[in-house]
Amino acid sequence: MIEPIGNQYIVARPVYSANAFAEDHKKKLRYHKTFLDNLKVCCSCSTQKAKRIALSLFPIASWLPAYRIKEWLLSDIVSGISTGLVAVLQGLAFALLVSIPPSYGLYAAFFPVITYFFLGTSKHISVGPFPVLSMMVGAVVLRLVPTTSTMSLDIFNSSMSNDSSTDEYKVMVAATVTVLSGIIQLVMGVLQFGFVVIYLSESLISGFTTAAAIHVLVSQLKFILQLQVPAHTDPFSIFKVLNSIFSQIEKTNIADLVTSLIILLIVFVVKEINQRYKAKLPVPIPIELIMTVIATGVSYGFDFKNRFNVAVVGKMQSGFQPPITPDIQIFQDTIGDSFGIAIVGFAVAFSVASVYSLKYDYPIDGNQELIALGVSNIFGGSFRGFAASTSLSRSGVQESTGGKTQIAGLLSAIIVLIVIVAIGFLLEPLQKSVLAALALGNLKGMLMQFAEIGRLWRKDKYDCLIWIMTFIFAIVLGLGLGLAASVAFQLLTIVFRTQFPKCSILANVGRSNIYKNKKDYSDMYEPEGVKIFRCPSPIYFANIQFFKQKLTDAVGFNPLRILRKRNKALKKIRKLQKKGLLQVTPKGFICTIDGFKDSEDELDSHQIEELDQPINLADLPFQIDWNADLPVNIVVPKISLHSLILDFSAVSFLDISSMRGLKKILQEFMRIKVDVYIVGTDDDFIEKLVQCEFFDDEVKDSIFFLTIHDAILQILMKKDDSTSKFNSSQGKDAKFDFTINTNGGLRNRECQVPVETKF
Amino acid sequence: MIEPIGNQYIVARPVYSANAFAEDHKKKLRYHKTFLDNLKVCCSCSTQKAKRIALSLFPIASWLPAYRIKEWLLSDIVSGISTGLVAVLQGLAFALLVSIPPSYGLYAAFFPVITYFFLGTSKHISVGPFPVLSMMVGAVVLRLVPTTSTMSLDIFNSSMSNDSSTDEYKVMVAATVTVLSGIIQLVMGVLQFGFVVIYLSESLISGFTTAAAIHVLVSQLKFILQLQVPAHTDPFSIFKVLNSIFSQIEKTNIADLVTSLIILLIVFVVKEINQRYKAKLPVPIPIELIMTVIATGVSYGFDFKNRFNVAVVGKMQSGFQPPITPDIQIFQDTIGDSFGIAIVGFAVAFSVASVYSLKYDYPIDGNQELIALGVSNIFGGSFRGFAASTSLSRSGVQESTGGKTQIAGLLSAIIVLIVIVAIGFLLEPLQKSVLAALALGNLKGMLMQFAEIGRLWRKDKYDCLIWIMTFIFAIVLGLGLGLAASVAFQLLTIVFRTQFPKCSILANVGRSNIYKNKKDYSDMYEPEGVKIFRCPSPIYFANIQFFKQKLTDAVGFNPLRILRKRNKALKKIRKLQKKGLLQVTPKGFICTIDGFKDSEDELDSHQIEELDQPINLADLPFQIDWNADLPVNIVVPKISLHSLILDFSAVSFLDISSMRGLKKILQEFMRIKVDVYIVGTDDDFIEKLVQCEFFDDEVKDSIFFLTIHDAILQILMKKDDSTSKFNSSQGKDAKFDFTINTNGGLRNRECQVPVETKF
Repeated sequence: MIEPIGNQYIVARPVYSANAFAEDHKKKLRYHKTFLDNLKVCCSCSTQKAKRIALSLFPIASWLPAYRIKEWLLSDIVSGISTGLVAVLQGLAFALLVSIPPSYGLYAAFFPVITYFFLGTSKHISVGPFPVLSMMVGAVVLRLVPTTSTMSLDIFNSSMSNDSSTDEYKVMVAATVTVLSGIIQLVMGVLQFGFVVIYLSESLISGFTTAAAIHVLVSQLKFILQLQVPAHTDPFSIFKVLNSIFSQIEKTNIADLVTSLIILLIVFVVKEINQRYKAKLPVPIPIELIMTVIATGVSYGFDFKNRFNVAVVGKMQSGFQPPITPDIQIFQDTIGDSFGIAIVGFAVAFSVASVYSLKYDYPIDGNQELIALGVSNIFGGSFRGFAASTSLSRSGVQESTGGKTQIAGLLSAIIVLIVIVAIGFLLEPLQKSVLAALALGNLKGMLMQFAEIGRLWRKDKYDCLIWIMTFIFAIVLGLGLGLAASVAFQLLTIVFRTQFPKCSILANVGRSNIYKNKKDYSDMYEPEGVKIFRCPSPIYFANIQFFKQKLTDAVGFNPLRILRKRNKALKKIRKLQKKGLLQVTPKGFICTIDGFKDSEDELDSHQIEELDQPINLADLPFQIDWNADLPVNIVVPKISLHSLILDFSAVSFLDISSMRGLKKILQEFMRIKVDVYIVGTDDDFIEKLVQCEFFDDEVKDSIFFLTIHDAILQILMKKDDSTSKFNSSQGKDAKFDFTINTNGGLRNRECQVPVETKF
Repeated sequence: MIEPIGNQYIVARPVYSANAFAEDHKKKLRYHKTFLDNLKVCCSCSTQKAKRIALSLFPIASWLPAYRIKEWLLSDIVSGISTGLVAVLQGLAFALLVSIPPSYGLYAAFFPVITYFFLGTSKHISVGPFPVLSMMVGAVVLRLVPTTSTMSLDIFNSSMSNDSSTDEYKVMVAATVTVLSGIIQLVMGVLQFGFVVIYLSESLISGFTTAAAIHVLVSQLKFILQLQVPAHTDPFSIFKVLNSIFSQIEKTNIADLVTSLIILLIVFVVKEINQRYKAKLPVPIPIELIMTVIATGVSYGFDFKNRFNVAVVGKMQSGFQPPITPDIQIFQDTIGDSFGIAIVGFAVAFSVASVYSLKYDYPIDGNQELIALGVSNIFGGSFRGFAASTSLSRSGVQESTGGKTQIAGLLSAIIVLIVIVAIGFLLEPLQKSVLAALALGNLKGMLMQFAEIGRLWRKDKYDCLIWIMTFIFAIVLGLGLGLAASVAFQLLTIVFRTQFPKCSILANVGRSNIYKNKKDYSDMYEPEGVKIFRCPSPIYFANIQFFKQKLTDAVGFNPLRILRKRNKALKKIRKLQKKGLLQVTPKGFICTIDGFKDSEDELDSHQIEELDQPINLADLPFQIDWNADLPVNIVVPKISLHSLILDFSAVSFLDISSMRGLKKILQEFMRIKVDVYIVGTDDDFIEKLVQCEFFDDEVKDSIFFLTIHDAILQILMKKDDSTSKFNSSQGKDAKFDFTINTNGGLRNRECQVPVETKF
């Protein structure tokens, strides 16, 4: 039993190396599941499992039977109607982002909701168009369907047939990209790839959505100013678009500009009021709806279209159009973009869904969400809709107006349906610039995220870098490619973070078992000849050289160089001995020569390899103390280090490259008689090394100790031992002098080196 | 002083939280260099620095004046001649890999050596053609210059002019790619990007070179069988080439096939002999040279060219050709490949150079090497050579025959020069298939690397995966793109390794200060109500969810859910109290009601947010023991956990995302009165958290303790404290009973809950 004794930390136990501990405390034999075992579990089959999978594929089968009509239906209806109205407006506005006629936005707000109703696991998100996603689809559409820049300013005056066929092709491209991204989502869902969202960190999402907001802003400028902007392909497209706009800025339609500025101003102000008096207002003022109604009325009443030549929503096709078969040829050209759309769409929907799932405490299933979104997009795309995910604001409306289940979503789809089949024509006089202004009204929050940069810079440089790079990538390369580049860069930062670890030398503070960075405290104790080196990160191929460099810096010498110098010196001593020039005297080496000629400057490659071998003293009748003075002309750097402790408590893994490097380092130190101790590793770490055949006769598994303090005690004990042994055996041990008799010695000099004879 | 007492680990010190320790041991104020400081040092200017930089730009200025003519010149001459002969043969053979006439290979073996002589820092590598690099250049050449597949079998019979212009264009492409990659290397060198090589791990290099060997093998097949193979662009090209070859296998030139098989056999056998009797042979048998001489003689003597219609080296242009200006248009098309060539070329040269620098103990400078190779490639490319690096075998020859400095390299270039200007015509009758066979003779070692797969699988699954994926990428995508994909994949594995850490629950072993995985040992002690959770890897955006999941699994409940249930229960208790239905009795709650109606099933979103707030008992006249039975119908899950220790000794960093996640987790636990302790972190870690405003009134920096044992002792002490306080204050403390008087209570039931009153 551990008993607390006052505020005291009192421990008395044997010093433990990993081996000694294993002897005292037998480890249980545990069966570790292999890859095959996991595969077996994964692939095993049972009726129950089949049933569970079937149920999880159709979540509606679980929640619909449990629907509490009396309690939930009313709030679902209220929520459904509000959401539906928002969905209509957003559908129209976001269709402009895709560069297709607004009416198609309604399809995007209708079809996906139907399938999600059956397949989705979230009860609160409102599936449908999302600005960033619409932008991404729009980028593909603009790339594949170049609009002729010579078209007249008012698109309604230009040849109608040509225009509508272009529009048709645009819709076709948008639908195809949507279907393809749906297929990708479906496949990912089936393959259980729902975990990919974890690779989108907060900093990345923040930088990405800010860039997306800039893209949206720029793309809406042409509607606000009512300019014809030719299509630009992805990388650098934003700059090209801006260039086009400013080069024809004098052609601006003032009526459109004024309308949108007024709308924008009103929307901003009312949204601010909504935000500030959140608590006092029963529901937020539906300013978008109000503005749309007013703007449509004004535009119709004063016949803006003909009077000011503004662009209006125009002919709303009443009812549905036949489904289309996606163009396989387009699949090939858009696979990269579709991948981006699939990922972003899922990431947004999933993150919004998880906010609500956490809030209302029900489970959502990432993989099922992928399947639901995938099917929704395939379905929606086939009926000429464009990529759906969820919009934060619309989901917010659905939830805050009391939506309890996807029944609300279904009802919102019915509202959209009514607009599609019956009252869509009412919106025909609405100016496109009004829709653009409404779309911009939502961007404030996203653009405010620029403030993140400063905050992140103060907190974490790497996160700040991720934000900035993501923003730059997404702006410059476009959203699809930019996202890929950002994710790659972000993963790279994880490597960077571990690649240049802040290695430090530790020493004892307070004379107990606490070891801290030597530079940080003043009253430190470091036993003589002992270095404690801490590496605070995993070691792998990219930082093993760095680790080695830091370790060499810390100990102050390169062990390999010392080894070579000693081996070279040994060669000379052997040669002297062979020639009979060396004699052992009890006091050490006595040499009567100063100018002993060294003819061995040139070593061939084989000889150099020999120098890297362990020092072999087996055939010498004496041992050499390398830190004492050696016979004349033989100079070996003296090192005071006898023990090196590597604190590996934060080294979470080694890879093969680093293992080989580490072994080499250990060997080099051991060959110059520096004892190496590795401490703080867990058992798995040692097991892994055993498995990789790390240990041999030179590097043994006895180098592992539980803690730094265990190793330090072991070192002190060993030193004590050897001193006392030396003292006790001194009587028996004879010390000999070497005398070098030289023929050509001009000067005589004596140097005494203590040598210990071997028995 | 720490004194070893037998084999005993004896410690007595106060229990330390991080704060208590900081009070006892004052930290020194250290100035940490900021980014700006480092920039200042980097950009500072002085005469000395300028001189050092100038010297480092021309390493020859350091080593040439120190050249020991007497000792080194002879061996440099011997080495230079041997290397030169090998360079001639390799130049001819590797030119075939580039798909250009063999004579251009001689330029590649001549020009780069000259510039490297002045700029290089390695004394032993032999700069010049390298098979993998030649392959990579060849892939670009074949992509940009499609050979007409309708060409007649014997290229010398086809229209000469057409052919030579094609060849000229090929040479042009090869030279342009070489210059571009040289420019990339030069720029990287100037920007100090020499560190990039660390991203090429051993497993990656092994997999990559094996794939390169396969590419070389396949590309040489057409020379050995003497078939016309049309060009195929990069991804999947290897399969397309194989398809082409097998579809026309019946057109094989038997004479070429037989010659190359014989050569291949002899080369293999003699190389084996060289290897086996390495120690006994004074120099390895120069079998390539011998075979070339014999094959040339035989081909000339028996007029193979006309008799068997074999392809020969053919007209060797004597002397040099004028330099060419690279085609800027080609730059655009080959920037990706050039990048790959630049990196691979540098990586190979640098790794070979560092082997020798380590062996002979002299420094090499990665950035200077980049500059040297870059200039060499620009120079060589301008004179119609192709990309140069170093070949392992040729550098081996230069070193093993005694080369001491780049003087040997310069002499080898002179040998090549002699062949170019004088005796090149002698090689004209040599069969191309012989050159191909000689190139293949060097592949055995690389192909043997397949054995790595099994070895790596046993040691480290991730490394094995890197090997296999690199191999597949390089085979399928081609060498340039494949390398990029492999590096990306390899970096991803670093993320994978840390992403799913093996979290574990620790417990005390042996009743001292040792804590190990609870599952591993049998006689473990875990204080009641305490969990010790260890996360053995950094925590960041990609694994914070995983960490949370594992922690929830470990403690057995979701703290947020408990908090909500408690807050809900509290609401009910408050309501009861307000209605006067609740009275405090000394023995706890006494309730006389069973069917208390719960009308609060439906909560709106605002109310749900309230449930996540800390439990506020301030306005209640009593405290509630959540683990005791509560009044009827109020059920809250009981938890026994009162303290949670997080062992973060291996958590080397947190990012912003994970910090936010961690804080949320800590809050949730603290709000349900579970004390959280974080142990094992270093000081930097806490400083970082302070900097990121991690701490507030709820999550304080007093949760940090030095070790698990400190935290455990603190917990036991606290518990002791509260028990004794409770015992001593029991006399004063009054316990009250709550009595619920219900109006509609049907059944009476009593349940007593111990409550502690608040003062």
